Amino acid sequence: MELEKLTQKIIKGIFVELEASGRHVHVSKEQAQILFGHDLTPHRPLSQPGQFLAQERVTVKGPKGEFQNVAVLGPARGKAQVEISLTDGKTLGIVPPVRLSGDVANTPGAELIGPKGRITIEEGVIAAKRHIHMTPKDAKHFGVKDKQVVKLQTFTERPVVFEDVVVRVSPDFEAYVHLDYDEANACGFQKGDLGRILP
Amino acid sequence: MELEKLTQKIIKGIFVELEASGRHVHVSKEQAQILFGHDLTPHRPLSQPGQFLAQERVTVKGPKGEFQNVAVLGPARGKAQVEISLTDGKTLGIVPPVRLSGDVANTPGAELIGPKGRITIEEGVIAAKRHIHMTPKDAKHFGVKDKQVVKLQTFTERPVVFEDVVVRVSPDFEAYVHLDYDEANACGFQKGDLGRILP
Repeated sequence: MELEKLTQKIIKGIFVELEASGRHVHVSKEQAQILFGHDLTPHRPLSQPGQFLAQERVTVKGPKGEFQNVAVLGPARGKAQVEISLTDGKTLGIVPPVRLSGDVANTPGAELIGPKGRITIEEGVIAAKRHIHMTPKDAKHFGVKDKQVVKLQTFTERPVVFEDVVVRVSPDFEAYVHLDYDEANACGFQKGDLGRILP
Repeated sequence: MELEKLTQKIIKGIFVELEASGRHVHVSKEQAQILFGHDLTPHRPLSQPGQFLAQERVTVKGPKGEFQNVAVLGPARGKAQVEISLTDGKTLGIVPPVRLSGDVANTPGAELIGPKGRITIEEGVIAAKRHIHMTPKDAKHFGVKDKQVVKLQTFTERPVVFEDVVVRVSPDFEAYVHLDYDEANACGFQKGDLGRILP
């Protein structure tokens, strides 16, 4: 094994790479039809296998303000979800509860505006709860289980320990920590930075 | 001693209250004259004794954008300083280094625009390094020294341990942790939340 590959293997055995998720939207196939007149078109793949950044963009509008040109992630889901930071919430005039993706009962709604149409979602605006994607093999290696809450130390310019990071395990995942931009900036995240799950 | 007072005393012996500092500007007396035509006028006192939020407001302008109506803190200082979050920096097109207040050598500049005039500062834009104000008595109580870097656990909705918090000791201070809004949102800060210095 070459040195570079060995180094990578050792690093991946100890650390998990951090990623910062900007504000983004998930929509259903039907909603994509209304907003864009067609299904989502992949623009580039994301770190999680099968997930992609779509070519399509939307405006997200709240009571106080809006964001134009917001990323839409594919493939289409069962229902719409808008993931923003608490900072974004101030601009929109929406207080997003901190939730895991998919857990949108009793969350605020918003208006989504595309080039072909607009829809109002009654719920679905959340601040994504920080989480770690990993495979069952990774979970076994790190000694953690799906839905377990762990502490994660960041090796970043402004080091922090995030105390409430949810582990999400699926054979479809790749090992990455997902932070929002408030969290990324609070720890001084730069692309490629690593975190470590604390015992 | 009444129960309420006793409770407060016990709390203050164990915890330090958190405060979130929004973007703000410090200016010199001469700069206040140029921007406003007069010295700063106190609007309301801040948590640190003698410090105040001024009635005056300025626009802070960077290469990519600006913020209007930015808070100015008094009293006037020896030189101007603009404290923004990393998120704010994206809007302005400025990458603020993470520094303690006053440590502005080789930092970016910005334009400040007031109702009576405008000035360009060559340096002084920083993201304030997170810190804890306290008196020498507090420092003795918590077993820390001026300039010591400590870990601080937050008792907030999204709990974190900030690993690099600088202790600042002065008889003129009151015990408060100062975070910027990236950090405040990353930990889900609400007014009144507490932190604990870890051993």
